[in-house]
Amino acid sequence: MITVGVLGAHGRMGSEACAAVEGAEDLELVASVDIGDDREALRAADVVVDFTHPSAVADNLRWCVDAGRHVVVGTSGVGHELLDEVRGRLQPGQGVLVVPNFGIGAVLMMRFAAQAARFFDSVEVVELHHPRKADAPSGTATRTAQMIAAARAEAGLGPGPDATTHDPDGARGATVDGIPVHAVRMAGLVAHQEVLLGTEGETFTIRHDSLHRSSFMPGVLLACRKVAEHPGLTVGLDAFLDLD
Amino acid sequence: MITVGVLGAHGRMGSEACAAVEGAEDLELVASVDIGDDREALRAADVVVDFTHPSAVADNLRWCVDAGRHVVVGTSGVGHELLDEVRGRLQPGQGVLVVPNFGIGAVLMMRFAAQAARFFDSVEVVELHHPRKADAPSGTATRTAQMIAAARAEAGLGPGPDATTHDPDGARGATVDGIPVHAVRMAGLVAHQEVLLGTEGETFTIRHDSLHRSSFMPGVLLACRKVAEHPGLTVGLDAFLDLD
Amino acid sequence: MITVGVLGAHGRMGSEACAAVEGAEDLELVASVDIGDDREALRAADVVVDFTHPSAVADNLRWCVDAGRHVVVGTSGVGHELLDEVRGRLQPGQGVLVVPNFGIGAVLMMRFAAQAARFFDSVEVVELHHPRKADAPSGTATRTAQMIAAARAEAGLGPGPDATTHDPDGARGATVDGIPVHAVRMAGLVAHQEVLLGTEGETFTIRHDSLHRSSFMPGVLLACRKVAEHPGLTVGLDAFLDLD
Amino acid sequence: MITVGVLGAHGRMGSEACAAVEGAEDLELVASVDIGDDREALRAADVVVDFTHPSAVADNLRWCVDAGRHVVVGTSGVGHELLDEVRGRLQPGQGVLVVPNFGIGAVLMMRFAAQAARFFDSVEVVELHHPRKADAPSGTATRTAQMIAAARAEAGLGPGPDATTHDPDGARGATVDGIPVHAVRMAGLVAHQEVLLGTEGETFTIRHDSLHRSSFMPGVLLACRKVAEHPGLTVGLDAFLDLD
Repeated sequence: MITVGVLGAHGRMGSEACAAVEGAEDLELVASVDIGDDREALRAADVVVDFTHPSAVADNLRWCVDAGRHVVVGTSGVGHELLDEVRGRLQPGQGVLVVPNFGIGAVLMMRFAAQAARFFDSVEVVELHHPRKADAPSGTATRTAQMIAAARAEAGLGPGPDATTHDPDGARGATVDGIPVHAVRMAGLVAHQEVLLGTEGETFTIRHDSLHRSSFMPGVLLACRKVAEHPGLTVGLDAFLDLD
Repeated sequence: MITVGVLGAHGRMGSEACAAVEGAEDLELVASVDIGDDREALRAADVVVDFTHPSAVADNLRWCVDAGRHVVVGTSGVGHELLDEVRGRLQPGQGVLVVPNFGIGAVLMMRFAAQAARFFDSVEVVELHHPRKADAPSGTATRTAQMIAAARAEAGLGPGPDATTHDPDGARGATVDGIPVHAVRMAGLVAHQEVLLGTEGETFTIRHDSLHRSSFMPGVLLACRKVAEHPGLTVGLDAFLDLD
Repeated sequence: MITVGVLGAHGRMGSEACAAVEGAEDLELVASVDIGDDREALRAADVVVDFTHPSAVADNLRWCVDAGRHVVVGTSGVGHELLDEVRGRLQPGQGVLVVPNFGIGAVLMMRFAAQAARFFDSVEVVELHHPRKADAPSGTATRTAQMIAAARAEAGLGPGPDATTHDPDGARGATVDGIPVHAVRMAGLVAHQEVLLGTEGETFTIRHDSLHRSSFMPGVLLACRKVAEHPGLTVGLDAFLDLD
Repeated sequence: MITVGVLGAHGRMGSEACAAVEGAEDLELVASVDIGDDREALRAADVVVDFTHPSAVADNLRWCVDAGRHVVVGTSGVGHELLDEVRGRLQPGQGVLVVPNFGIGAVLMMRFAAQAARFFDSVEVVELHHPRKADAPSGTATRTAQMIAAARAEAGLGPGPDATTHDPDGARGATVDGIPVHAVRMAGLVAHQEVLLGTEGETFTIRHDSLHRSSFMPGVLLACRKVAEHPGLTVGLDAFLDLD
């Protein structure tokens, strides 16, 4: 049985994480801490999960590391300096995992897209979201395009074929590192992304449809289960998925 | 048995039309005419199909109408003036059909999209083509968006919800009469289009994949079979599909 | 302003209908009636919507008709005998609409599928639902296939081409009136259906994704707004969509 | 420059392979051999590609191995006994690659599907082919399902959730090692496959559309380029894709 403490336990992600841990047979929730609570209760936990706030995460992370806990960080705002500092403070055998995206589907999509992009002439990304989203293209689509572009550059591939000479207007989206990213905003959608790849004679499509926040919980649980097996500092859920 | 003559019989569409007519049990190919041939042979045909050239179509169309033939025009470049002139020259019972797109799938997509657009908050179009295409968005996508926009205006609907405030770059495509049209160019594709519609709680998608020119032939044969039943001048295959 | 009363106002659909009517600017909710309440309050309503129970719908429908109300029936279990009886009781100008499916998307999908099926050699249906569903294929998919089969029979079309000689096992689904219907059951899905049509050189796809019950409310509101304009008895939302 | 010889050079795959090798800047076609030709010409080739016939492949493979050539075998019918024999005959540094499927897209789809299947509750396969296909489900779909089932068994996962109690008929397809495989046959299609995966709150889809034989040539060229770098006997293109 792995004991788990949650920091930011009253927030949207934190409260869902508490429920998910309580529902897992091999995990035990031993501390639920939010603003104003004493962090000492977290010392009983093998693993502390942080879903707090960018302004609070540095202090929490230092405290947890010094308290010898394994840590899973789901809060954004962990910069390179903090990562370097944490790396220096870690004790032998202690694991810290910083996770920009707990969605296993999103992680798989990015990884598969980058792997496949080496074998096709053309790659474009279509991301589709609810119409309340302010930014286009989405952060996930931008990261996906960057990973695709990096994989193609490493394989010595140039831009995909494109004879377009007349395209005066432009639609929602962007070209990210040479990869076209199209952004659809539509009532009835939640968060969806499609990576389209093509070579003469065949196309290949990877699509992820995310319908609600519960889809992040399998990633949270997986992180709790595996962080102790991966001493040191890790960024991204990929390394824990045993995909190689 | 309906007898058919083909004008422009040696061109790509014309030769395929000759083969299609010859393969149809209820049609008989009685004249195949191209540049330099005598058009008189066409007098034996109930229906003349024109697949010539924008510079030749006016003269051919006048000749066929004066010869009392039913005519199916698949050549582009038939403007409003010529249409008016033809309307005036027609004899009672004579039918002329001018067809911008013989693809029954494309015609159905446009029609269904316009009908459905009245019932959804959001509509966007994604068109996907081979990378040798010079224009973006495609003509079919532009027409589809125009038809959607007209249907929405008639139903008193405004633009779909869109909270985008940060979209600095733009991707291939355009916003046509308020409808976003995204253009994908990719090796391995031919000609494809998707119309996406959404309202809170549901989405609706109409997709057409066109793989080669043979997909236009059912529309050509249908036009030959029905043009005599529709006296007067008709533009577009829609009216012959008995969809109401 | 159209006044509306809801019968079965405390049920899942009824309570959602009450909220939807209250949220519509051109409708006013004047009566919310459930088991044990007096139906007299419904006399103040131009239109009564019934979301009760198959065992109660006959009595409610008779009462509403005799009270001179326009009626929208969303409860299942209205058989041919009851329909005939209602038709006989209607006063001039009184409208009754019986709706098996308020989902406008589902209605459009069935209609478009039946219209398109006349123009393609092959048609198959894939329905995809959450894994708690007991029946396969779904009722909507079965009705869709029946409508497709009827449209093809009327157009003189036989079964689609299929050279399968070795298919020893069978997967979830059925062949309904000659139309293959495939049934996918999957965690993460809600209610989805795809109609695939194909002819040499092209394919055509109509897809509907329904994510939650709120997607039925636009159909409920549309029924309330239009039932008075359609005197007599009508079955199905189609006739109110002005699609011709 | 790598020199290549093709055995079965007049067949469909062989002739396309000859053209592809001639079109590649880093490969040189030095021998095109078919039935009745002398195989001695193949001694000039660094790599011999075999696209002959199941009845001829054993003799050709022995000859090539004894001639010290690297070999890429695209002919089916290479059984375990022959593989064992070849393994014993190989000289140090000599590479033989036996490839059941040169489609890089198909190889990626199977690999990604098996990797992703460990992270989702439900997995089903939909394969879609032209209506002239005799078998259902397709060989690729069956292998995909087997690989998915093996990956899930290794991860300790049971069957996906499925509450179906009423499914009296069955549609085209099969349940392969517990994985439902649905088979669509449709005019206008070529060879397509979709792997659908789902967990509460999200779905993940991998789709491959193969439109013609040319899509196998990148795999053939990749095999020619890399077989010398992989001494010993290898089965399947996967190992050459550097996906780990």
